[in-house]
Amino acid sequence: MSKIVAVDVTDVRFPTSADLDGSDAMNPDPDYSAAYLRVGTDSDEDSARGHAGYGFVFTIGRGNDVQVAAVRSLAERLIGRDAEELLADLGGVWRELVYDSQWRWLGPEKGVSHMAVGAVVNALWDLRAKREGLPLWQLLARLSPAEIVDLVDFRYLSDALTREEALELLTAAEPGRAEREATLLAEGYPAYTTTPGWLGYSDEKLEHLSKEAVADGYTQIKLKVGSDLAEDKRRLRIARDAVGPDVKIAIDANQRWDVTEAIDWVNALAEFDLAWIEEPTNPDDVLAHAAISRGVAPVPVATGEHAANRVIFKQLLQAGGAQVVQIDATRVAGVNENLAILLLAAKFGVRVCPHAGGVGLCEVVQHLSMFDVVALSGTTQDRMIEYVDHLHEHFVEPVVIENARYRPPQRPGSGAEMHAASVEQYTWAR
Amino acid sequence: MSKIVAVDVTDVRFPTSADLDGSDAMNPDPDYSAAYLRVGTDSDEDSARGHAGYGFVFTIGRGNDVQVAAVRSLAERLIGRDAEELLADLGGVWRELVYDSQWRWLGPEKGVSHMAVGAVVNALWDLRAKREGLPLWQLLARLSPAEIVDLVDFRYLSDALTREEALELLTAAEPGRAEREATLLAEGYPAYTTTPGWLGYSDEKLEHLSKEAVADGYTQIKLKVGSDLAEDKRRLRIARDAVGPDVKIAIDANQRWDVTEAIDWVNALAEFDLAWIEEPTNPDDVLAHAAISRGVAPVPVATGEHAANRVIFKQLLQAGGAQVVQIDATRVAGVNENLAILLLAAKFGVRVCPHAGGVGLCEVVQHLSMFDVVALSGTTQDRMIEYVDHLHEHFVEPVVIENARYRPPQRPGSGAEMHAASVEQYTWAR
Repeated sequence: MSKIVAVDVTDVRFPTSADLDGSDAMNPDPDYSAAYLRVGTDSDEDSARGHAGYGFVFTIGRGNDVQVAAVRSLAERLIGRDAEELLADLGGVWRELVYDSQWRWLGPEKGVSHMAVGAVVNALWDLRAKREGLPLWQLLARLSPAEIVDLVDFRYLSDALTREEALELLTAAEPGRAEREATLLAEGYPAYTTTPGWLGYSDEKLEHLSKEAVADGYTQIKLKVGSDLAEDKRRLRIARDAVGPDVKIAIDANQRWDVTEAIDWVNALAEFDLAWIEEPTNPDDVLAHAAISRGVAPVPVATGEHAANRVIFKQLLQAGGAQVVQIDATRVAGVNENLAILLLAAKFGVRVCPHAGGVGLCEVVQHLSMFDVVALSGTTQDRMIEYVDHLHEHFVEPVVIENARYRPPQRPGSGAEMHAASVEQYTWAR
Repeated sequence: MSKIVAVDVTDVRFPTSADLDGSDAMNPDPDYSAAYLRVGTDSDEDSARGHAGYGFVFTIGRGNDVQVAAVRSLAERLIGRDAEELLADLGGVWRELVYDSQWRWLGPEKGVSHMAVGAVVNALWDLRAKREGLPLWQLLARLSPAEIVDLVDFRYLSDALTREEALELLTAAEPGRAEREATLLAEGYPAYTTTPGWLGYSDEKLEHLSKEAVADGYTQIKLKVGSDLAEDKRRLRIARDAVGPDVKIAIDANQRWDVTEAIDWVNALAEFDLAWIEEPTNPDDVLAHAAISRGVAPVPVATGEHAANRVIFKQLLQAGGAQVVQIDATRVAGVNENLAILLLAAKFGVRVCPHAGGVGLCEVVQHLSMFDVVALSGTTQDRMIEYVDHLHEHFVEPVVIENARYRPPQRPGSGAEMHAASVEQYTWAR
């Protein structure tokens, strides 16, 4: 038996605003940041192997100190707890943290307090995967259907998905797991790239990076839009000319519009054959997403990186507000809640194309898509994980992209661990 | 000209869990708390008159430290700013704080970060009202329709309410303001009481307090339900027998149920002639509230104390998910966002019955209902402000209830200021 004896939370900030990496219509000057958690035990074996659990919340600068305070306040409750007991019942841990009535009042189940739960839950998953000697995706994909549904809380979901239905979906996907795992290991998971399309980039940079994406084998790129329609047309023309007719172009408005504006704007861009319109409006606005989906069809609406929890995703699916579900590694309460969202998407037959980029989002979220193809949806058809070429060098196991596909990670863990030197160098002090 | 020179944020916690005051099906042991903000200036006149701006976020205990960190982080940006400039453009201040892209990432517009905006905005309103020598309700109700709509941001609302429509509603209500203000000053604003109905109270206490409520002139009481159906029936029988057939009884499930359970449970209580069912399920679940509203009609569904922002309220109204809108003084981004919600309710013709209780929620929210009756809806018909008999003694101007009606506050300000001695005594140190 071992105990949790240390929780260290660090305010890590990378000065990305200097180069306008990550700039979009709502976020002109992000400094990509992380409230970064390390959970340590008193186990001799963990110590000998260098095992600790890492999790984080991605933010874009100001306020990262508040997220750090939240993760610390919550994580400190783990001190003295039995590590084996916690790791053996991560469904129970999730319920304990999410339904702590006093903590829950701060959301409920949304924003700073909920993302803090995610960091803590994910750090425990990281430790568990390390102890089991498996990358997280493989650990999850080898659990039984019953073990997986035990990780998920079905409260507030039952009008769309019951525990029994979830169990059926997972059981139906059990045959073929080994074969799909082998295929994944051989071929990787499809990626698309947002690297060319940040709003702050020059025309030359847009054109150059678009051509480079095609040369690298990408079949989809994404452009930020929403500040100026004429500008968007001009930039889409540059991108379309650069990539040719066969590469898909998605656009991302980062919540810029109201309903009518969104519909008119997207329809005005129809000539560019859009792969999807992402975050057309406020992420809480299920009804607006449904109205926009009807108004811009057949262009699919994609959203999720700011969807606060499984209840918002459930409604987006029920209302027909999202034709592409974009899970995010750190927006919701960790692996468990993302499993719930993957199950909801599977139930509704909607494809999942995770949001990534930021700090370490690619590293962590890839595990969830890889779990999904092996043990749940069984397919990568029309599915891609976002790829952005930023800040990977700070992670102990940076993502590997080959032929525009994510190589399955090999190291035990969740992918969240950063190099100690990077954490030290970018620790923020005002 | 004067500058903001001090922002002090205090972690105030009252040990209410000892008596089970405030206990319900989801919150068994709250310790009513506040992240309490004081904004001070270098103005000699403010100093001479003892004027500072106070605002706070209400929480129920654990995590109040995180809310304090958020309010402090945000409020510190005010240091050095020109006070007159800020107070003259509180619509602009609201937009600046809510749409700060880095801060907004933490929500967006929900939870800890958004409530922090509310505390800051409300503290500025408090200071402005003190400087103008008016209670907040009177200050707001004497603004012109154009000044009021300038305080509101219509982004994400335009599919339900435009600036022009809001202006029309306010302009239509302009005649009669003086008369309604006089009536309000003479008669007060209706209240209902939750004091009898906390889940942790004994049968004797429930019966005694229910009878006392009737004797005090209340025409509606509210009971917490949702833990056990047989228990709820038993307690509702005690309450109904105590109050007689003419006093209304509302019930509050505090988010306990899923859709089917909510409908079945409420319908099983039909014999008690329910005034409304409050918070039947997750507060983000617009579609579930709509389904429950259909399933339990004619019993109205009430919600709002945990609705994160104006976009959730908008959808509840669009979808028919709320027949009673329950604004809260500290859940959303302050006075400005509550004005937006009052305008939405007026547009949809839905009555507003604020959530109160907690720490100082009665003291602050009454101003909004009083503004509403004078300058917007023009009516108190079927409208009541919740009243709970807790912790009022800590406020400089505690609410006054006479004949089960709120007396309009007289002192300049928003009602948020606590006695310095109370703040000192209940400052939390772990």
